Amino acid sequence: MKVAVVMGSISDMPVMQDAINIIKEFGIEVEVDIVSAHRTPEKLVDFSSNAHNRGISVIIAGAGGAAHLPGMVASMSPLPVIGVPVKSSNSIDGWDSVLSILQMPGGVPVATVALNGAKNAGILAAQIIGSSDKTILDKIVAYKESLKQAVLKAAADLKA
Amino acid sequence: MKVAVVMGSISDMPVMQDAINIIKEFGIEVEVDIVSAHRTPEKLVDFSSNAHNRGISVIIAGAGGAAHLPGMVASMSPLPVIGVPVKSSNSIDGWDSVLSILQMPGGVPVATVALNGAKNAGILAAQIIGSSDKTILDKIVAYKESLKQAVLKAAADLKA
Amino acid sequence: MKVAVVMGSISDMPVMQDAINIIKEFGIEVEVDIVSAHRTPEKLVDFSSNAHNRGISVIIAGAGGAAHLPGMVASMSPLPVIGVPVKSSNSIDGWDSVLSILQMPGGVPVATVALNGAKNAGILAAQIIGSSDKTILDKIVAYKESLKQAVLKAAADLKA
Amino acid sequence: MKVAVVMGSISDMPVMQDAINIIKEFGIEVEVDIVSAHRTPEKLVDFSSNAHNRGISVIIAGAGGAAHLPGMVASMSPLPVIGVPVKSSNSIDGWDSVLSILQMPGGVPVATVALNGAKNAGILAAQIIGSSDKTILDKIVAYKESLKQAVLKAAADLKA
Amino acid sequence: MKVAVVMGSISDMPVMQDAINIIKEFGIEVEVDIVSAHRTPEKLVDFSSNAHNRGISVIIAGAGGAAHLPGMVASMSPLPVIGVPVKSSNSIDGWDSVLSILQMPGGVPVATVALNGAKNAGILAAQIIGSSDKTILDKIVAYKESLKQAVLKAAADLKA
Amino acid sequence: MKVAVVMGSISDMPVMQDAINIIKEFGIEVEVDIVSAHRTPEKLVDFSSNAHNRGISVIIAGAGGAAHLPGMVASMSPLPVIGVPVKSSNSIDGWDSVLSILQMPGGVPVATVALNGAKNAGILAAQIIGSSDKTILDKIVAYKESLKQAVLKAAADLKA
Amino acid sequence: MKVAVVMGSISDMPVMQDAINIIKEFGIEVEVDIVSAHRTPEKLVDFSSNAHNRGISVIIAGAGGAAHLPGMVASMSPLPVIGVPVKSSNSIDGWDSVLSILQMPGGVPVATVALNGAKNAGILAAQIIGSSDKTILDKIVAYKESLKQAVLKAAADLKA
Amino acid sequence: MKVAVVMGSISDMPVMQDAINIIKEFGIEVEVDIVSAHRTPEKLVDFSSNAHNRGISVIIAGAGGAAHLPGMVASMSPLPVIGVPVKSSNSIDGWDSVLSILQMPGGVPVATVALNGAKNAGILAAQIIGSSDKTILDKIVAYKESLKQAVLKAAADLKA
Repeated sequence: MKVAVVMGSISDMPVMQDAINIIKEFGIEVEVDIVSAHRTPEKLVDFSSNAHNRGISVIIAGAGGAAHLPGMVASMSPLPVIGVPVKSSNSIDGWDSVLSILQMPGGVPVATVALNGAKNAGILAAQIIGSSDKTILDKIVAYKESLKQAVLKAAADLKA
Repeated sequence: MKVAVVMGSISDMPVMQDAINIIKEFGIEVEVDIVSAHRTPEKLVDFSSNAHNRGISVIIAGAGGAAHLPGMVASMSPLPVIGVPVKSSNSIDGWDSVLSILQMPGGVPVATVALNGAKNAGILAAQIIGSSDKTILDKIVAYKESLKQAVLKAAADLKA
Repeated sequence: MKVAVVMGSISDMPVMQDAINIIKEFGIEVEVDIVSAHRTPEKLVDFSSNAHNRGISVIIAGAGGAAHLPGMVASMSPLPVIGVPVKSSNSIDGWDSVLSILQMPGGVPVATVALNGAKNAGILAAQIIGSSDKTILDKIVAYKESLKQAVLKAAADLKA
Repeated sequence: MKVAVVMGSISDMPVMQDAINIIKEFGIEVEVDIVSAHRTPEKLVDFSSNAHNRGISVIIAGAGGAAHLPGMVASMSPLPVIGVPVKSSNSIDGWDSVLSILQMPGGVPVATVALNGAKNAGILAAQIIGSSDKTILDKIVAYKESLKQAVLKAAADLKA
Repeated sequence: MKVAVVMGSISDMPVMQDAINIIKEFGIEVEVDIVSAHRTPEKLVDFSSNAHNRGISVIIAGAGGAAHLPGMVASMSPLPVIGVPVKSSNSIDGWDSVLSILQMPGGVPVATVALNGAKNAGILAAQIIGSSDKTILDKIVAYKESLKQAVLKAAADLKA
Repeated sequence: MKVAVVMGSISDMPVMQDAINIIKEFGIEVEVDIVSAHRTPEKLVDFSSNAHNRGISVIIAGAGGAAHLPGMVASMSPLPVIGVPVKSSNSIDGWDSVLSILQMPGGVPVATVALNGAKNAGILAAQIIGSSDKTILDKIVAYKESLKQAVLKAAADLKA
Repeated sequence: MKVAVVMGSISDMPVMQDAINIIKEFGIEVEVDIVSAHRTPEKLVDFSSNAHNRGISVIIAGAGGAAHLPGMVASMSPLPVIGVPVKSSNSIDGWDSVLSILQMPGGVPVATVALNGAKNAGILAAQIIGSSDKTILDKIVAYKESLKQAVLKAAADLKA
Repeated sequence: MKVAVVMGSISDMPVMQDAINIIKEFGIEVEVDIVSAHRTPEKLVDFSSNAHNRGISVIIAGAGGAAHLPGMVASMSPLPVIGVPVKSSNSIDGWDSVLSILQMPGGVPVATVALNGAKNAGILAAQIIGSSDKTILDKIVAYKESLKQAVLKAAADLKA
């Protein structure tokens, strides 16, 4: 029960750190690596083909611009792959990363989250593990309860 | 081990049928229902709050236009929710369903697939189950192999 | 004769304050609350189902990103619901909030105003009340006259 | 208690008819006219300035392309104005009508509904009247109940 | 031989000043005014209907957001109207002003220039006058020559 | 007093014919030619540099896709140039032609009309001529009156 | 001196055939294959890594949706790679294929042509070969001359 | 064996410098000039028609807004032309320059790279030369290897 978080470049780390943090918060082991679809294609093949044999359950992949990493990982791994579109500096307002991760052809899904939505990618990974692991499922339920309490407190503060 | 496929309207069925078919192909049980976020909000609450207590592992939700069903189900269920943006008749080229499913706020992820990508939603659901079920994982590996063989055959036919 | 202003998060308040202010300027009572479609779904159901029984005439709902609050309130309330798309930090230029509020399916309208247009939402609420209340209608007429005088004064200053 | 439905051209009628029908269904009187912002500006001024003195409570205005009719009516009437973006033949996928109706400046709101959403415009007009008229409010509640029953029936048929 | 430059709000002046300056550079008389389509509709009617009787040859109109001023002036004046889409603060990246000025219906053209392109609006006004006035035409030719010389000088500096 | 109508390809004629027809209706002489910026650049230079010396007052240029014709003509002619974005077969919904005609740099305006708006280009050309020619100006006034009468008649028919 | 034309699926052939035809017209040898980035990743690696050792000078790669083939080939080949965005059936108006081919990160260029612009991809391949091969360069010059003559003939026919 | 880098304005230099630098890094001669399609059309004709006779093998052209320079150079030169869309100050988020460079008509390709992607334009130019020059091809292979090593080092640093 381990989640792998990979990203195309170290410059994606400020966004992707949110995924790493929340996965750890759920008490799930996380492995982090830089795998560039365009610059280290051999490492991409190696990582993607073997992840499911190394005890990894879910892969989170983040990339910006013409973001091919999530889709290419998904093409070579039988595991669920979560894609995080990163709004990089020369992106066209993020549309490029969103569309090149989301619009995968039939047969090769990528579970896409919101632009820069690394935190949600981490939660989704936990939910996937939780779908067969009662301990994690309970933590998800508790986490959602904490979100609710925070909103209710903000509402109460507003009226105070 | 069961997948629930819900949609906002019976008019989404021609698109969503692809999800149902592929899940069955993987030998996974599937439950189908119509749950409209905007027209049957009580049923929405009931369905979403209880799915994880009824043996469901993954929820697939499809909707068009201002598509709130996937996000609202995700707000009330601890299970992984896969969202299928449906290109409905008065949609603005599908952008409305894509963005209202994808761009969920922090804390409430929806695993979004391509516009009309119900087949990929079904495969993703199988991959999620496969991440903790070796039998399904092996079927995913075999499925990907069959995709490869189909392309290789098309390439061979081209040269013949 | 009361207007309810709800928003998905306290972070929407800087935008939504404009609605509150202008409603008070028209001498109409206003009730403010935080109701998150995704984090407090039970409160959402409770608020939306009962607002019309608590003396509220119009509901203004503001939210950003995949903004489901206005539409979900509208699905459970018979009152006119005004939606304010908020341009939040990770929004894709505001398109996500605009489209997920505007493109509601047949049967469940949301009266959508411009991106960040909370002031106009407040004026529209007053106009709705004014459509059956001569005192408020006269205030709307006077308000529009004041807008005109401000422009005419700016034009006169320009020529001075 | 009367709703005026105006449109920029007779070619908008196939879309706008939906508004007229649903208003009549709610037992509300409706007045229909063609008022072109660009071709009959004097009629526009006359209509907009006087509607509230002729017993009209709500105005619905539909137009396509660079759709100025709803906003111009709103600039001269103190009544709530509902705008229907019409997807006309040379429109750029409807974006032009949506944006030129929605993005009104501060002080002059237009209650915008979905592209071609004339039916919802009619329902919204009824809701506005219903906000001060118990008979209409009850009809709205009943209408929403009928939407729910239709979905529940479709769901039941699906399982049958 | 006079050009009128009108704008919807004094806040458009920083952009529109470029038009005023270049028209004066060409030695053409210019008249400046604030005319808000939405806040001073009577002034709009008066200005538009009479401009051609007051010695004005060309009208330049600038506005932002749902920019109706250029189109409404064009609906009431037989003169050529040049529209300047202004990128205002709550605009959706300028798309709203561009589309609500450009996409005019058949019969009522607006000569649209680039987003914030007030300088080009001024040059276009001079070209329109120049099309029947040899002195101005010669100035246009000289102006274009000066643009060329500036580029050639920059190119020469680069190689120096 | 003559208008030149040029287009990038004979395939643009079905759209551009509208310009030719309306110019003739106003009793203005029209000259039609095919000038491709990308395929006949020498002809482009020759046409653009000399049009103002051949008695032409206004140039209308239509093109689709990456539509460079209007801007390139404007770069070499001191005359007012009206650009018609044509929605050609492989265009990306017309956005390419609109943006490559509209967004001209400072110094080189193109008077852009709506997508496929050739009729409006013709009317605008007549308005430009009318700005210094009382006979044509009167025809424009009469034309606008005819548009008004047509709308008023449609409105009367509706009520009959 | 050989050009390789690869595509992600046999369904791209109707578009890609244009590239094959024009390359043959220029008398250049062409090799055609189906290589799916997502379904045959091993073949992708093999093809891309070895093409420059098999006498291939230029690679043309066409794909639709989240089109990763051109970029992935470019990541593993030192040859110039030309990308053809294909407008496939579930594409979002072609924006997905355009952006996922065009917006490549620094270090890994793809020479992108217009949506469905396979013919231009073929011409560009010939121009690349022509940049070091006088025979092909002369054919390009002749080809461009033939384009010019076709336009001049159409213009002459128009005047006839 | 020389690459020409041209740009529409000296203000494009900060972006285009990346192309110049990388070409020099590959040991290829580079010639830089300012050629404005809209301000120096004669120089455009002269440059484009003669480049292939002056020992130039590849042309890189950068421009912003309605960017006609790359396409116009391509219309008059038989050489491969690489277009760099520059995100200039009044651009509509870069969409104008991207579309007016990318969407060239059949017969006149421009090899388009990413928005502000001048570095990739330089690499692509080197790849084009490398397709017939073993020394440059080897440098490309080495360059790609250096990209890989940089990513592998960043990955190693991350784990250290």
